[in-house]
Amino acid sequence: MQWQYLNGEIVPAPQASISTLDLAVTHGRALVETFAARRGRVFRLDRHYERVCHGAQVLALAVPLELSDLETAVCNVLDCNGITDARLRLTVTAGGDGAGPATILSARPLADYPAELYERGMRATVASVRRNETSPLSRVKSAAGLLDGLIARQRAQEAGFDEAVMLNTRGLVAEATVANIFVVKDDRVATPAVALGALPGVTRGAVLDLAREAGLNAGEGEVTLSEIRAADEAFLTNAIMGVMPLTRLEGGAIGDGRPGPISGRLRRAYRDAAGR
Amino acid sequence: MQWQYLNGEIVPAPQASISTLDLAVTHGRALVETFAARRGRVFRLDRHYERVCHGAQVLALAVPLELSDLETAVCNVLDCNGITDARLRLTVTAGGDGAGPATILSARPLADYPAELYERGMRATVASVRRNETSPLSRVKSAAGLLDGLIARQRAQEAGFDEAVMLNTRGLVAEATVANIFVVKDDRVATPAVALGALPGVTRGAVLDLAREAGLNAGEGEVTLSEIRAADEAFLTNAIMGVMPLTRLEGGAIGDGRPGPISGRLRRAYRDAAGR
Repeated sequence: MQWQYLNGEIVPAPQASISTLDLAVTHGRALVETFAARRGRVFRLDRHYERVCHGAQVLALAVPLELSDLETAVCNVLDCNGITDARLRLTVTAGGDGAGPATILSARPLADYPAELYERGMRATVASVRRNETSPLSRVKSAAGLLDGLIARQRAQEAGFDEAVMLNTRGLVAEATVANIFVVKDDRVATPAVALGALPGVTRGAVLDLAREAGLNAGEGEVTLSEIRAADEAFLTNAIMGVMPLTRLEGGAIGDGRPGPISGRLRRAYRDAAGR
Repeated sequence: MQWQYLNGEIVPAPQASISTLDLAVTHGRALVETFAARRGRVFRLDRHYERVCHGAQVLALAVPLELSDLETAVCNVLDCNGITDARLRLTVTAGGDGAGPATILSARPLADYPAELYERGMRATVASVRRNETSPLSRVKSAAGLLDGLIARQRAQEAGFDEAVMLNTRGLVAEATVANIFVVKDDRVATPAVALGALPGVTRGAVLDLAREAGLNAGEGEVTLSEIRAADEAFLTNAIMGVMPLTRLEGGAIGDGRPGPISGRLRRAYRDAAGR
């Protein structure tokens, strides 16, 4: 039996429900956060919570729990499901029309990406779907905003790739479909700015911090497809996979086509910090 | 008490609910149709149903009812709510993870736009949010896809406008936030093509048909902001407001700043056809 946190209670997941009047159902007004627990601990849970609070302003909804409530919810949902390593998913809905907002936290056993994938690195195509950086939703992790990326990723996987690079409306690199993207060239570590369509990923922020702490010249800016092709290294980040090397783009090798030393260094630094 | 159709049953709306495991909640995988019943009849309900079936392919979900089921559902939900003139909203969710898909049909008393608004025409600004015509979701009416338009419309209304014109990623006109847009110049009636980011509106299709039947040179194509400014007339269409004159853009008059003769003719033709 899978258990869910729903509005302060732990309930059997198959029986958990929300009102059909909730604007999450009718208008996609719901925020989403995905994060990993390892040995019962979530890395930078406070940043995930902050992102929900920022997104709530954009979607004009209320966040009906405090950070301490979220911490308790994480403990309880892990306990009830009898797991310590989990992929957690928080959904905060707008409610509406007499229906109160709903807060849902689900936990599934964490399936780490296979070690061989980190050793060969991911292979990406370029998505035909652009990321719309003109929309305030591009800076928010919403149920609505996930769909373009999921469709793009499915198309990429059907074509034999692991991921897809998404460009923004101006043709600059924004991010991958479910991950942020970094390029390394001559010891400069760069990732597309949020204003260019990158989701402000919590792992992205942590990796920028770790890179700077390691003395690297790391920052946000404009990244082009040509720069990925000409990079020494590239890698992807999200809360589930941490730092994943990106070694090929549309059939061409990035650098020597193998995971590079800076990707490896940041991957280990992230694993140490995030507890995996 | 408001009543809803939910999966073949008529239930009290405040008690209607769907599973928190439904991908509609977690990933915005839900299709939406909005249409008006007048004297118990919905104009071109078959086209709304066809659009759901097309959208279902894009969102990879199943449509769990036939057109005849939808017709019955419309009758039942109008009956139970004791109304014949209604704004109806159909939501079809993806279900998922053990949860079946949900079909929801709600009915609210129809509030027509005030007659004075048709007499002066709407005033639009230009939205800063672009419409992403590179996304397959731009051709589908999904809960997720409504949000950008609703945010843009709210900003427009806060700035004292009725509506906002949305451009696509190339800077061409796509549509308004909750309506399609038409321009009239020298008896040519044009509306942006679906490939340019226009939602394939059922009312848009009906107005194109009516314009052609009236002997006008009507069709899809590229429309620029300059063309709206230089047009003889412009108007907006959706299933609730029918044909609404658009008389000002960003403070400048379109034509002589008053509803034009072709807008008036098509508005009457649509009212006759749609039963209002």
